[in-house]
Amino acid sequence: MPAHNRHPTAQILQTLDHTFLVDCGEGTQMQMNLYKIRRSKINHVFISHLHGDHYFGLIGLLTSLGLNHRTNDLHLYAPEPLKEIIDLQLKVSNANLPYSLLFHSLETEGIIYADKKITIECFNVNHRIECWGFLFREKKNLRKIKPGKVNEYKVPTSFYESLHEGKDFIDANNKVIKNELLTSAVTPAKSYAYCADTGYFEPIIDKIKGVDLLYHESTYLHNLEEKAMSRFHSTAKQAATIAKKAGVKKLLIGHFSSMYEKLDDFKTEACEIFENTDLAEEGTSYII
Amino acid sequence: MPAHNRHPTAQILQTLDHTFLVDCGEGTQMQMNLYKIRRSKINHVFISHLHGDHYFGLIGLLTSLGLNHRTNDLHLYAPEPLKEIIDLQLKVSNANLPYSLLFHSLETEGIIYADKKITIECFNVNHRIECWGFLFREKKNLRKIKPGKVNEYKVPTSFYESLHEGKDFIDANNKVIKNELLTSAVTPAKSYAYCADTGYFEPIIDKIKGVDLLYHESTYLHNLEEKAMSRFHSTAKQAATIAKKAGVKKLLIGHFSSMYEKLDDFKTEACEIFENTDLAEEGTSYII
Repeated sequence: MPAHNRHPTAQILQTLDHTFLVDCGEGTQMQMNLYKIRRSKINHVFISHLHGDHYFGLIGLLTSLGLNHRTNDLHLYAPEPLKEIIDLQLKVSNANLPYSLLFHSLETEGIIYADKKITIECFNVNHRIECWGFLFREKKNLRKIKPGKVNEYKVPTSFYESLHEGKDFIDANNKVIKNELLTSAVTPAKSYAYCADTGYFEPIIDKIKGVDLLYHESTYLHNLEEKAMSRFHSTAKQAATIAKKAGVKKLLIGHFSSMYEKLDDFKTEACEIFENTDLAEEGTSYII
Repeated sequence: MPAHNRHPTAQILQTLDHTFLVDCGEGTQMQMNLYKIRRSKINHVFISHLHGDHYFGLIGLLTSLGLNHRTNDLHLYAPEPLKEIIDLQLKVSNANLPYSLLFHSLETEGIIYADKKITIECFNVNHRIECWGFLFREKKNLRKIKPGKVNEYKVPTSFYESLHEGKDFIDANNKVIKNELLTSAVTPAKSYAYCADTGYFEPIIDKIKGVDLLYHESTYLHNLEEKAMSRFHSTAKQAATIAKKAGVKKLLIGHFSSMYEKLDDFKTEACEIFENTDLAEEGTSYII
């Protein structure tokens, strides 16, 4: 429930090439205005599950994009019944979107999107209804060749691929030319896992192993472990345990119950298990 | 479209006995928190039509009321297809509301609610899809008898009803006892008409004649009269013309297009035709 000025779930994941929207609770389009997020840049929307706090803002966003004369395709990845809901709401308003809304029904774990730079997978989490996590993984970035240097050291073009991959070059005199001399580094490939509403669920550990940033829900503190379990939610301690077992680099916890006004205890509890933990706070950007 | 910190439409009408919600755009439940409106007090919701800016916030409000353990009946008056939308959204979330949601489909003009104190009528307005206006009319309040005085002047109980209605009493000596001496005044009965999205439409004039407060949409300024007409919306001048022809006491204009950041010109334009006009501004209360 929205409370203490906290809105329902929505996240923007910004990569070099994409602006992904992950979940879209009520009010998301207004919050985007507030935080100056250009919604026209969003081409891919991912909805984890069909509880209202994760999707009630979607239909408003979709129709506003239409009123904004969007013409670019919009890809929507979501549990299948969402399509019927959207179609029905468009039908009763006698409205046609001026762009193509391409619906991708989430059905099996695996890759749901890939291009030259990134792959996106969905995986099952453990909630009261069908619910999906999403794993965004940039492809390994190749090192960049320095044109002047490859000429200077007479590297044949047939060796360029090896250079991209970081290998050293051995010249005609058997001298080793270090790769660092011939190429420059690029931003390392990053990964982000979004574990939407879920009870403590160890099967996800394998999927999210070693990611740079893990978002894991943490609806309750651990003294309410039983309540969390009965509602298929997690405690801060459980989220941190998953982070630790998966060896991720950093943990972000969120989806705090409206019964908590202050959130300090969430951070304290999680940090005892997994130190590099941050609270997912509204309107905040986290650099991966 | 939400813009310039203006949210989609929702109004609370507060009477002595009721808190009515009229339309419920996205974000209404959050705005209610902001303006400290106790949503548990709402027992009747009226939805004018099924364009998203008038109802996308309803499902979130309904489910939040459920999470708040509401048990009182909630009456919803709306175009019929809304029922299917709500049912579908509850079904996919595998949720049951802990209270009864009583759906009243708007089908013909006339009284849709009445109790001892108030009647509520719906009437057709002229929009691109089925759309309803609502007229809230308090029943004439009866004057209150002063017990000491009716004893003193020996008024028989059979005359009490006439006293309630304001009639003078003639005693055994043919002396006229003024009603004001025997009774006290109560708040006069008030009326409020809500004319949701509509083009200029004279047939509503008869329905709303003489109301204390008329809310009439005014999406555009009059230099865009043709645009307004083609979209079944009104200009400020047209809203004021309706107010004038209906002889209402006061006019409130709202539903301003997102293309306008400042609203001063709306007031100026309307006041030229109908002076007692106010802008419907977010978070503002208007005393009827």
